[in-house]
Amino acid sequence: MNDLRMAVVGVGRMGLTHAENLLSRVRGAQLVAVTTSSAARTAEVRRRCGAVSVYGDLDGLLEAETLDAVVIASSTSAHAANVEACAAAGLHVLCEKPLGLSLEECERASAAARAAGVKLMVGHTRRFDAGYLEARRVIEAGGIGRPVLYRSISGDMNPPPLAFADLGVSGGLILDSMYHDIYLGRWLLGDEIVRVFGEGGALIDPSIATVGDVDNAVVSVRFAGGAMGSLTASRTTRYGHDLRGEVIGDEGAVQIGRLRRTPIRVLDRAGAHHDAVHTTPERMGDAFVTMLRAFVECVVDDTPPPVTGRDGAATLAVALAGRRSIQTGQPVEVRTSLTGSPNGDPEQS
Amino acid sequence: MNDLRMAVVGVGRMGLTHAENLLSRVRGAQLVAVTTSSAARTAEVRRRCGAVSVYGDLDGLLEAETLDAVVIASSTSAHAANVEACAAAGLHVLCEKPLGLSLEECERASAAARAAGVKLMVGHTRRFDAGYLEARRVIEAGGIGRPVLYRSISGDMNPPPLAFADLGVSGGLILDSMYHDIYLGRWLLGDEIVRVFGEGGALIDPSIATVGDVDNAVVSVRFAGGAMGSLTASRTTRYGHDLRGEVIGDEGAVQIGRLRRTPIRVLDRAGAHHDAVHTTPERMGDAFVTMLRAFVECVVDDTPPPVTGRDGAATLAVALAGRRSIQTGQPVEVRTSLTGSPNGDPEQS
Amino acid sequence: MNDLRMAVVGVGRMGLTHAENLLSRVRGAQLVAVTTSSAARTAEVRRRCGAVSVYGDLDGLLEAETLDAVVIASSTSAHAANVEACAAAGLHVLCEKPLGLSLEECERASAAARAAGVKLMVGHTRRFDAGYLEARRVIEAGGIGRPVLYRSISGDMNPPPLAFADLGVSGGLILDSMYHDIYLGRWLLGDEIVRVFGEGGALIDPSIATVGDVDNAVVSVRFAGGAMGSLTASRTTRYGHDLRGEVIGDEGAVQIGRLRRTPIRVLDRAGAHHDAVHTTPERMGDAFVTMLRAFVECVVDDTPPPVTGRDGAATLAVALAGRRSIQTGQPVEVRTSLTGSPNGDPEQS
Amino acid sequence: MNDLRMAVVGVGRMGLTHAENLLSRVRGAQLVAVTTSSAARTAEVRRRCGAVSVYGDLDGLLEAETLDAVVIASSTSAHAANVEACAAAGLHVLCEKPLGLSLEECERASAAARAAGVKLMVGHTRRFDAGYLEARRVIEAGGIGRPVLYRSISGDMNPPPLAFADLGVSGGLILDSMYHDIYLGRWLLGDEIVRVFGEGGALIDPSIATVGDVDNAVVSVRFAGGAMGSLTASRTTRYGHDLRGEVIGDEGAVQIGRLRRTPIRVLDRAGAHHDAVHTTPERMGDAFVTMLRAFVECVVDDTPPPVTGRDGAATLAVALAGRRSIQTGQPVEVRTSLTGSPNGDPEQS
Repeated sequence: MNDLRMAVVGVGRMGLTHAENLLSRVRGAQLVAVTTSSAARTAEVRRRCGAVSVYGDLDGLLEAETLDAVVIASSTSAHAANVEACAAAGLHVLCEKPLGLSLEECERASAAARAAGVKLMVGHTRRFDAGYLEARRVIEAGGIGRPVLYRSISGDMNPPPLAFADLGVSGGLILDSMYHDIYLGRWLLGDEIVRVFGEGGALIDPSIATVGDVDNAVVSVRFAGGAMGSLTASRTTRYGHDLRGEVIGDEGAVQIGRLRRTPIRVLDRAGAHHDAVHTTPERMGDAFVTMLRAFVECVVDDTPPPVTGRDGAATLAVALAGRRSIQTGQPVEVRTSLTGSPNGDPEQS
Repeated sequence: MNDLRMAVVGVGRMGLTHAENLLSRVRGAQLVAVTTSSAARTAEVRRRCGAVSVYGDLDGLLEAETLDAVVIASSTSAHAANVEACAAAGLHVLCEKPLGLSLEECERASAAARAAGVKLMVGHTRRFDAGYLEARRVIEAGGIGRPVLYRSISGDMNPPPLAFADLGVSGGLILDSMYHDIYLGRWLLGDEIVRVFGEGGALIDPSIATVGDVDNAVVSVRFAGGAMGSLTASRTTRYGHDLRGEVIGDEGAVQIGRLRRTPIRVLDRAGAHHDAVHTTPERMGDAFVTMLRAFVECVVDDTPPPVTGRDGAATLAVALAGRRSIQTGQPVEVRTSLTGSPNGDPEQS
Repeated sequence: MNDLRMAVVGVGRMGLTHAENLLSRVRGAQLVAVTTSSAARTAEVRRRCGAVSVYGDLDGLLEAETLDAVVIASSTSAHAANVEACAAAGLHVLCEKPLGLSLEECERASAAARAAGVKLMVGHTRRFDAGYLEARRVIEAGGIGRPVLYRSISGDMNPPPLAFADLGVSGGLILDSMYHDIYLGRWLLGDEIVRVFGEGGALIDPSIATVGDVDNAVVSVRFAGGAMGSLTASRTTRYGHDLRGEVIGDEGAVQIGRLRRTPIRVLDRAGAHHDAVHTTPERMGDAFVTMLRAFVECVVDDTPPPVTGRDGAATLAVALAGRRSIQTGQPVEVRTSLTGSPNGDPEQS
Repeated sequence: MNDLRMAVVGVGRMGLTHAENLLSRVRGAQLVAVTTSSAARTAEVRRRCGAVSVYGDLDGLLEAETLDAVVIASSTSAHAANVEACAAAGLHVLCEKPLGLSLEECERASAAARAAGVKLMVGHTRRFDAGYLEARRVIEAGGIGRPVLYRSISGDMNPPPLAFADLGVSGGLILDSMYHDIYLGRWLLGDEIVRVFGEGGALIDPSIATVGDVDNAVVSVRFAGGAMGSLTASRTTRYGHDLRGEVIGDEGAVQIGRLRRTPIRVLDRAGAHHDAVHTTPERMGDAFVTMLRAFVECVVDDTPPPVTGRDGAATLAVALAGRRSIQTGQPVEVRTSLTGSPNGDPEQS
């Protein structure tokens, strides 16, 4: 089979990472083009990806190029429409998370992929990290018995720009960051979250409240099977980019995480010291590449994608409930009767 | 000054530990007597503490001995009455936690000590562990900036006997075990908890539900100053006695805990392995002795006890609210206007 | 059986520790007296051990008291003569290491114990640490296969006073400190060291060379069975009291050590930080008590002591060879045909 | 400047890694061709590197292609001759370590590069690992004071094929594996090794002795400035590929190493468990790419290479001395008056 001809829609920080990885690290895929309306980003693409074609918008791309698949890394508010357009053009789609800012957007995206008979995969990157993959394997093999408790934390060293924090753009702390803790929990425990209760606040920088967001939050969750959990998200873990998870079962536990960046330890009269991971690539390593390979593989082999539109919708449903609970001060039951997986993934349905 | 003449009321597991420590490891104190109505416990006392006097009950003790202070380690349901009797006899009191099973019991105990002009200290042992003491010192010194997030877990390897789990005896998982996570949070952050929401269940052994208790629980907490937290308690952490805490501030964080028991690591074809702490003494080390010394010191120096009756009541108030939230499925606001500290500790009031 | 009536000969830092432990932590033993000619030490004994008898010298002690056993913690140069005197008086002896400054002294001490029919045990304390005990258990159980490599390090934060460093007093760095790495290696591998080669120097403080000693040294060792090792001793590990060992076998390895003192970790913009053990008790914990209990047990049960005079002599032989190799720049073969164990310990002979 | 046109001479395991990295991860370099006489390796090159040219030998390559630089990854016994041929053709050379099997070969290679005016860099890969780079930075910044002790270990899980172990092919354990511990020590301490003493044996598989090699070794080293060290190399660390180093100074220490492969820890009734790195890429990560980038940079910028022919010769001199010491049982002084650096690197000369 020929290499998949692929394009990246939107080349912000994440889109450019995907473009670079497609260029050289994903066998079976060929980076053909990207889209951006920014001259500065175009120059950056040239610098990092060489002679790839650059289009000003998605329409231009679809009109000019013959493609097999796309990676959508545009702003979240454009995700659903972008998926619809690409699906209508017969292209398989890997869409950055969240799939949309509302369940309706998720459903529109999934329906479009279903109607077009194309794959739709959502970019749940951390699930492809070697640590989380191995944790899931241990749990599935019965290594910890029945999962009972789930604890997860996502810490960013600094708040994003206010424009990004805006609930209408990124969805805010819960939809943007705690989203990861939600899908990881669903996936690790193989169970759906049915109730949430959240506490949140703009504790460090009050300006974040002006766009409706919080900078720190704790959300407790209840799974359908009875297990319980606690999700913590922080924009102010100054000491590092702190991504940790643990699942405690009735026969054991698994702890996931790594804070040290460089494999050294310095010792002096004040004790022992080591550095910390500061960025997602430092922590996640090859997870981005592993995810792209998984997408290419499901297209090439015509198998269900490992993360479906339904996973995106179910995760978003919990995130929206968490955000609402923080706003209302009341526990929120999560609507679990989501529409079936568009790709019929039996593992996740 | 002569050594304080002391007795231990109740010599179950904890009481016997206190008796042994008083016997030889607490300068300024002298173990005079213990109480127990059990012949088996009397024999055990003889074996481990030598020729100390043993009385069948508190009345007998108070009648026969001239004492300065007592450690009350009877069953929780008898705490308040024991404190009242000892205070009436003019004895300073160190009472195991919780001070009572209701706020009314706490108030009775505190009022009795106040009226008698004796010290009343509550046995918040973990707060005297070297790790927690150092964490508090770091936080007070500004080492992590303003505390924003608190995460704590108390894991026991196995559920207690059903008779102990009974809510009317120990108070159940929340009053018996998560109680520690509550007072540690109040103390580390120097702030009161004002709202809780809890999830809990008898997930592993349904029989625990027959006495009204749960075996695993997650409680989210909100502090008066805005900080948030998540407390987790489990009776089924089979891998070890897992006591951990962390406080994340806007300039750094502190993590407390130790799981390894023996300072070795074994490496083989399956990787690297180390053992785990199984019991409280293995983890807490000298904290029991440090606590007894602090009590003796506050009596000898006539200074406020480091843990007051008010601390006991405030901690119990949060624990009761957590238990109620688990039962009702609703968030519970915590009554914060507790009566003032009987010993006038300005630090905690 | 009645408690063993015991005395401690010499109450420097180690002797006082033994006295305190005998006073309250060793069932079956009773501290009767100590010896010291110093008024200051007498006062310290009074403060820490209460009303125990104090004698100005060993003769006075032996004349006045009826004893069962002694712990000899005098200066090393007096060890052999002290053992001879106590053995002649029919007392069982636990003697601090090294048993003497020459193999002749060791032999005199062993011969005296043998002739008197009393137990002679040498104070190889680290061997009673929980970590080393567990490591030995793992190795004996076949957990690492056949031992092939041994690496050990003993680090002190600061050089001792020059008067102590003097080769005629403590024996210097090799006999005083690396002595531990030697006996631990012999014991962990169950094999004798047959050749050594050493490098050493007074690298940090040249004044230590004026008394013939070095402040840092590396000694490579060869075991009779073919295994190899490297021993490192330093008086200048400013970051902590660093005691580590590892044994690598053909099926796995075991690593022993612990540097963290307090179970917390502080994280800030500079990374993660933890403190370090500074003193032997902080690292060794209950090993001193475990050793005293083992001695009392072998006396009471009339079993071979776990560390024999032969162990003391064999360890000293290697240490002397290491010191000579450093001085001569040549490898030194170790005389292995030491006299048999005075107590007939089949395990070590 | 145009991209450097580069070829890889020899595409065994290391050569193929270099080829893949040159293909896509080293800006400023272009992989033009490789050499191999094996049809199987040619197929593997096709699979992993696409349409690159393949030549049967170095002569064919030099005749047919216009190149700027080469990476020599042929068998060690061919290194010197390959360097001479490439230098004569005016090509800059990055040669895998060791540069030769004798100091004469090293000198021939260096002389050829000097005469041709081309760069010669030796592939001391571990020195480009983020951990070792940071350790060197800490030491140079004075973070540990004056280095006094160096301990290093290189552990491979399994012995290589006998044909490779042959002293005339790879140079055996000391020249092939402990070579790394030697150059890292020289570089970290910024000092030359002047004396070695080694112990070694074919302890696990006697067949390795039939080709003159050992499977485990310990070599003690003395630096010109007085510091001491211990190097350990093992072909039988079954638990993992264990690369560790530490430098202890008179004000602190730095420890380098990482054993965990996947960032998870599993806890069960037997304690806590984590996996181990098994291969060099798992441990060294980007060091291979960092090294290639450093080579390309020194060529493009016309600066001295970070690792010179003199570094290669000085390292080999110590390795040869270590091997001889193991064979003779005597300490060996190292000839330090090596010829000056062909590239005039003032840092290392």
